[in-house]
Amino acid sequence: MTSTLPVAIEPDHDEHLVAAVESAGAQVVDLDEARALVWIGTPSEFPELPDHVEWVALKTAGIEDFVSAGVIDDRRIWTNASGFYAENVAEHALALLLAGLRQINTAVLRHWDKEPIDTSVRSLHGSTVAIIGAGGIAASLIPRLNASGARVIAVNRSGRAVEGAAQTLPSTRTGEVWAQTDHVVLAAPATAETRHLVDADMLAALPSHAWIVNVARGPLVDQDALVTALRDGQIAGAALDVTDPEPPDPHDPLWSLPNVIITPHVANPSSGLTRTMAPFLGENVRRFIAGETLLSVIGPDRDY
Amino acid sequence: MTSTLPVAIEPDHDEHLVAAVESAGAQVVDLDEARALVWIGTPSEFPELPDHVEWVALKTAGIEDFVSAGVIDDRRIWTNASGFYAENVAEHALALLLAGLRQINTAVLRHWDKEPIDTSVRSLHGSTVAIIGAGGIAASLIPRLNASGARVIAVNRSGRAVEGAAQTLPSTRTGEVWAQTDHVVLAAPATAETRHLVDADMLAALPSHAWIVNVARGPLVDQDALVTALRDGQIAGAALDVTDPEPPDPHDPLWSLPNVIITPHVANPSSGLTRTMAPFLGENVRRFIAGETLLSVIGPDRDY
Repeated sequence: MTSTLPVAIEPDHDEHLVAAVESAGAQVVDLDEARALVWIGTPSEFPELPDHVEWVALKTAGIEDFVSAGVIDDRRIWTNASGFYAENVAEHALALLLAGLRQINTAVLRHWDKEPIDTSVRSLHGSTVAIIGAGGIAASLIPRLNASGARVIAVNRSGRAVEGAAQTLPSTRTGEVWAQTDHVVLAAPATAETRHLVDADMLAALPSHAWIVNVARGPLVDQDALVTALRDGQIAGAALDVTDPEPPDPHDPLWSLPNVIITPHVANPSSGLTRTMAPFLGENVRRFIAGETLLSVIGPDRDY
Repeated sequence: MTSTLPVAIEPDHDEHLVAAVESAGAQVVDLDEARALVWIGTPSEFPELPDHVEWVALKTAGIEDFVSAGVIDDRRIWTNASGFYAENVAEHALALLLAGLRQINTAVLRHWDKEPIDTSVRSLHGSTVAIIGAGGIAASLIPRLNASGARVIAVNRSGRAVEGAAQTLPSTRTGEVWAQTDHVVLAAPATAETRHLVDADMLAALPSHAWIVNVARGPLVDQDALVTALRDGQIAGAALDVTDPEPPDPHDPLWSLPNVIITPHVANPSSGLTRTMAPFLGENVRRFIAGETLLSVIGPDRDY
């Protein structure tokens, strides 16, 4: 009977993941019998791994907390969920950008204050949007932006052309982007290199009608510099699904600025996470059994 | 010198329209010399027309106020701006729908109230959206919805298949749509037939997760029935750029319902209207001079 792949799902036997693992032909077992571990808990609860665990599947796309907890080792394959939630996050990024441009936050707060809202509405169509960190989220977002009549500048590490982008630049040339774009979407992982990517210099280089959308990680933005730029009208607004820290302090000036939209880190809702992850996990179980390369393997630099 | 087409632009010589008319090879003149009138004022100010005016261009897509003021006659060609603002309105419709689904209004009002927001976020991708009144706005909206992973049911008068829609129904079969769709976008003109198209029966037939978006005209919705449906949780929410009346009374319950987004009739901002209209007017001037059929001619039924 144990010729099927034994997979542990910890710390809870989530129903969506159990169904996905079983329908991919594996068997759900305890960790002490497992060749693979699907871990849906926090880094601090992470268990001591037996040597017979050959693969660990994490549920998140951003893995910086697992990296800093020292959980990830070099003795087995680790996968994250990079790309699994891309449709969700891309949709939320578009929602935030459009909400800012179409003044929906202002209308919600100030009701039928027609004249200032009318003159502040801007169009996505005809604009240029830069996506910083053009991976899976960008692949889902670019067709949405193009269908909305926007032109995309993609920035990725390699500078290798991204499909649907009018232009792709390597991250070493990120500084050239600000003066050429109308709006910016942050979709890069949180690494030492991307920390405070949005700083006072970058904000000063953006046009005054620019909206910045962050669906990646809070530390990509120097939040003090952002508040100053928003107060001084250097940029038009910021729509943030992530902040630093999360949530922002109740007295953080971000809450009182009229040109800020904050959603509580729900681009990929936690409540639907395992349901969204399940088909991708099933595919990875199938690949593991077949000896194929897994989706979203964490590389040796552990940046993604 | 007067072999060029003489065009009056009244009551103001708007700079964008003057430039468009002149670059199309016509000359801007007073009304008493004009063969064409571009009217950017209200119906009540509308002038007595000399017989030599062969064409009147109105600046709005909805012309019900001009019809009820008795301004439109059968003695010349009348054009409206149907389709000129379609990109703007389609973009606003998408912004409203996404803002509702992604709970941006709730986040703006209730800040980092994570758990209820997280569990209320819904995805446009994978959903079905019905567009009622599938003309120019739908033609712009459908590619945006398809790129977002949504399936579209289009409803128009003829039932003639609309490009990009998974299904097209004639307006006589509108009643079949409600149970088959997740969300509804209203983009139909205000006519006797479309008045209170959204009523208690329609609202009862929609799924409880449905959002209704209105970027057309307020009277398409029976607002009392809508308030009841929103209060009772029959539908998930309503995102309205138009209301009946406009603005809603300050004590209207719409303002206090948590699942309502109202923008102050800014899908096509007044402040940018003539700039948006200018290239279309220029094209119509070129066509008039060339003896070609004009864009957006108002038909004998004056419904559009």
